[in-house]
Formats: sequence, structure tokens, C-alpha cells
Amino acid sequence: MFERVAIIGLGLLGGSIGLALHRAKAAREIVGYDVGKGVGERARVIGAIDRSCASLTETVQETEIVILATPVGAMYPLLRNIGSLVSPGTIVTDVASTKAQVVAWAEEFLPSTVPFIGGHPMTGKEVSGVEVADAMLFHNCLYCLTPTAKTQPAALNKVVALVEVLNARVWYLEPEEHDKQVASVSHLPFIASTALMLSASEGTTWSEAAFLTAGGFRDMTRLAGGNPEMYRDICLTNKDAIGSLLDEYIHKLEQMRDDLNHQDKKKLHETFERAQKARLQWQSLRDFPEQS
Amino acid sequence: MFERVAIIGLGLLGGSIGLALHRAKAAREIVGYDVGKGVGERARVIGAIDRSCASLTETVQETEIVILATPVGAMYPLLRNIGSLVSPGTIVTDVASTKAQVVAWAEEFLPSTVPFIGGHPMTGKEVSGVEVADAMLFHNCLYCLTPTAKTQPAALNKVVALVEVLNARVWYLEPEEHDKQVASVSHLPFIASTALMLSASEGTTWSEAAFLTAGGFRDMTRLAGGNPEMYRDICLTNKDAIGSLLDEYIHKLEQMRDDLNHQDKKKLHETFERAQKARLQWQSLRDFPEQS
Repeated sequence: MFERVAIIGLGLLGGSIGLALHRAKAAREIVGYDVGKGVGERARVIGAIDRSCASLTETVQETEIVILATPVGAMYPLLRNIGSLVSPGTIVTDVASTKAQVVAWAEEFLPSTVPFIGGHPMTGKEVSGVEVADAMLFHNCLYCLTPTAKTQPAALNKVVALVEVLNARVWYLEPEEHDKQVASVSHLPFIASTALMLSASEGTTWSEAAFLTAGGFRDMTRLAGGNPEMYRDICLTNKDAIGSLLDEYIHKLEQMRDDLNHQDKKKLHETFERAQKARLQWQSLRDFPEQS
Repeated sequence: MFERVAIIGLGLLGGSIGLALHRAKAAREIVGYDVGKGVGERARVIGAIDRSCASLTETVQETEIVILATPVGAMYPLLRNIGSLVSPGTIVTDVASTKAQVVAWAEEFLPSTVPFIGGHPMTGKEVSGVEVADAMLFHNCLYCLTPTAKTQPAALNKVVALVEVLNARVWYLEPEEHDKQVASVSHLPFIASTALMLSASEGTTWSEAAFLTAGGFRDMTRLAGGNPEMYRDICLTNKDAIGSLLDEYIHKLEQMRDDLNHQDKKKLHETFERAQKARLQWQSLRDFPEQS
């Protein structure tokens, strides 16, 4: 049972955390803050928070745990602003998509009496906003936590307790390691999807070809429909890891281009077979429902 | 109502055509042929065909319409083989993924008394085999037909009638134009998916990163699980169209790589926004159910 929990940023993630905390009766009071007009009030109405605060000062005062649930692009000004407002002993955590940069900003701006533990729940939807918040959003998902050498066990225990209330599973990673791994399974995919959507839609045949699209095209371009600001800010805060993976991706595509040019039947087959094998191995590891 | 229909290749597509013809009672007799051991008999048992033939000669004789339902890789030897076996007046059509090369082979190997009309139903599943055949597979899908200047109206009418029995919608295209368009919406996507699966699974962090994969990764790599022989043969028979689109895709990725290197906030945002807009426009055009 938490005392006061504050959620800053009342979108899909912040709203869902509030709903889940409420459902579990896990906090004496949940307060919230969002810069969007009327968002705090809407979050209160749907039961994501008990009270909408008018300022950051009001939000973070005398709070046991502050959850920064804004996109990564808002983290720099937010951490800088709350640095002088949070009370000693308050624990701060976040849900942003990249971690090394956020952890560095937290260490720069938060007082040493305020422990910060980076978090990143591996869940989401293509739609956003508190209206689509869902108490079950985190159910059974992996929830990355990136404690550092400075992290105190007592603070970590509280954030772990929060993750457990959400019915998510804690997954520890170093911040840099987290960023490398999500670059591979999450950031490179949205870049690949974006470039694919643009290649198709900016091609000369699109006005007709659009009618020939089927489930494969739908799946391969779904991520391209995601939020441009969020994608941009993920790129800007995870430049190195994404950059080297993007180089590797382009290299793989160039190899396939060469094999195609040379009509290299054997190499093309070998490449598709290797990918199929890797996909089947991944599938046996994971148990996602397949969609046709 | 057709007289005798012959289906060569009794996999997902051939089996589904047979089931749909049966369900609609659209043919007096449906015969089938497959090189796979026991496949013809299994197709008969599930009701995809009335009779499994032991040879191509037996299959195509005295047949009103022959449907070549093999992957594109089998088309060259198949067309060469049946050229001397088909009776004058028999109509031949196919369901292969690329058309210009297949139409050229048909013109080379079939007698002038045997009209050929290329076909390509825009449907499928990642799984294959007659066991997953489905009479509803073509329901409401676009079914490309690629008649040429040589195509006789009477022959075309019969193939159109076949498409209508399948409850699919006829979509006319020149063979070369078909290949360009499917390269964009179907072939480039499976190449992009393959390279993505390999980039992730051959990266140094895969043994851990695999656990962080979510719905986005699943969707972006689903096509990588497809049949390597089929993908290889599509590449080999649609080299030029795929090649130039792959160049364009690599170019788009390189631009994003540059913008990332230069931390170009504005350009990255503009790129993601353009893709999002194109995806939303496509979505409003199509009415595929979205999946999160």
C-alpha cells in the first residue's frame, strides 16, 4: 500500500497505471498532472486519478512515488523542473522508451536524496490518450527496470512493488543495454516500417497498387502509423544504438540486392531459409497469437 | 457450370479453389494432380477434387479449364510439359505471384489454340498445404487477371466466371504493371521483413532482446516466416521491379540514417509525419481490421 502516488503525464500509460492502482486499491491517494487542457479532469472522471493538480509543485509535494509517464521528449524539461520541487525521500520513476539518456538527466537534475529508477513497460497501443487507458494494459508484460550502482534497495523495492501491482513482470537491464536491445526489437522495426510505407506510397504505381495491399502490407506498415513526435524523440535519445543497427539492416538489404542482381538462386534461398528458421525459433520462444 | 476442371498443384490455393468449386457445384468434374506423395488422395478426401490423376497427361486431357496452382518456381517446367498435352480449346490459367515471366513462358510453350490468362488472387496464409485449404479463402479478395492483346474474349469470360465462383473480385492489369505493383505491396515487404528478422536474430543482444519483443516485432517479422523457395522464385521472376524498389527502400533508410547522424530533429519529424499521414490515408481507403 502506497501513500500518495503522483502520475505526471496522463496518456495511455499514465492513465492505465492509475486505473490499475485504483483497481488494486494500492494507494491512499493518486494525484495527476497533464499539460493538456482538460486531460487531468478526464483522467479523474474515468477513475485513473483521485485528484487533478494545477501545477507540478502541487503534484509532487509530499509524494511517496512520482511516476513520469510522458513521452521521452518531455523528460529533459520535466526532470529539470521537478528537481527543485520534490521532497527528500520521494522516489521517482518513469516509463519512457529509452533509458540511458533519461537516467543521465535524472542524475543531473534530481537531488541525491531523491532516488530515480528508470522503467520501461514493454506494452502499448497505436492509439494514445487517457480515453484508451486500460487497467489490464500491463498484465503479464515485461517491465524493464534499470537500476544503477547508486540505486538503494529500499527505493528499488517500492518500484518493484508498483510493477507487481500492475501485474507486470520485472526485467532488470543496464540502461545502455536496455537501449541496445529495444533498438533492435522496437526502434529499428518502426524505422523499417516508416521507410516501407514511404517507398510504397511515394512510388509511381501507388494509386493503383494501394488496392492490391493485403494482410502482409497492413502488418508491415502498422508501426508507420505511430506518433511522429515520439518516434523522433526516441531516435534523438537512442541515436548510437539505432544508428549501428540501421547500418546492419541496410547492409543485409544490400546483400539481398546483390544476390537479386546476380540471380543467385542459392544465396537467396539460404537467406530466406535462415530468416524463416530464426522466426520459427522466436515463435516457439514466444507465444504470441499469429494473425493472417 | 464448367465441364471438367483440372487443378495442378494441390496446396492451399489449389485446394481452396477445388473446395469453392465443389461448394458452388460449379463443375461436372474436378480432377487434380500434385507431385507430392499422397497429396492428391488427401485433396480428394477433403473434397477439394473428385479424382486424383496419376499423370499430367491424364490430368489435362479433355479438360475445359486447367488451373496451374503451383508456386511460380514450378511454372517453367510445368508449362513446358503440358504444352504438348493439352487439347485445343482448353483454357489455361494460373495463380502464381508474378505474371510477366509466366505469361511469356505460356506464350512460348502453349499451342496457339490454347488460350492462357494469367491470374493472381491477392490472398494467402503463412501456412501451406491442402490441409489448410478453405472454400472461403478468396471471398471478397481482389483476383488479378492479366489478359494480353492476344486474349480471346470467350476465354476471358470463362476465367472471369471462375473468379466469380470463388466470390473474388476481378482486377485487370498488364502483366508488367502487375509485377511492379505487387513488388511494391507484397515482395518488398517480405524482403524488408526477412532482413529485419536477420538483423535482430544475428545481433549480439538477441539472446536477451528476444524476450523484449512485442506485437510490433511480431507483425514486422511475420512475413519472414514464409516459404523460402517461394520467396526465392518470386525474386528470380520479378528481379527488375523488386530491384528498383529495393534501391528506393535502401535510399529512404539511408536518408533516415543521415538525419539520425545529424540529429536533425525537423527532418526526422517530417519523415515520420509523412509516413503516418500516408498510413492513415491508406487505412481510410482499406478497411482491414487493425491489430494491436
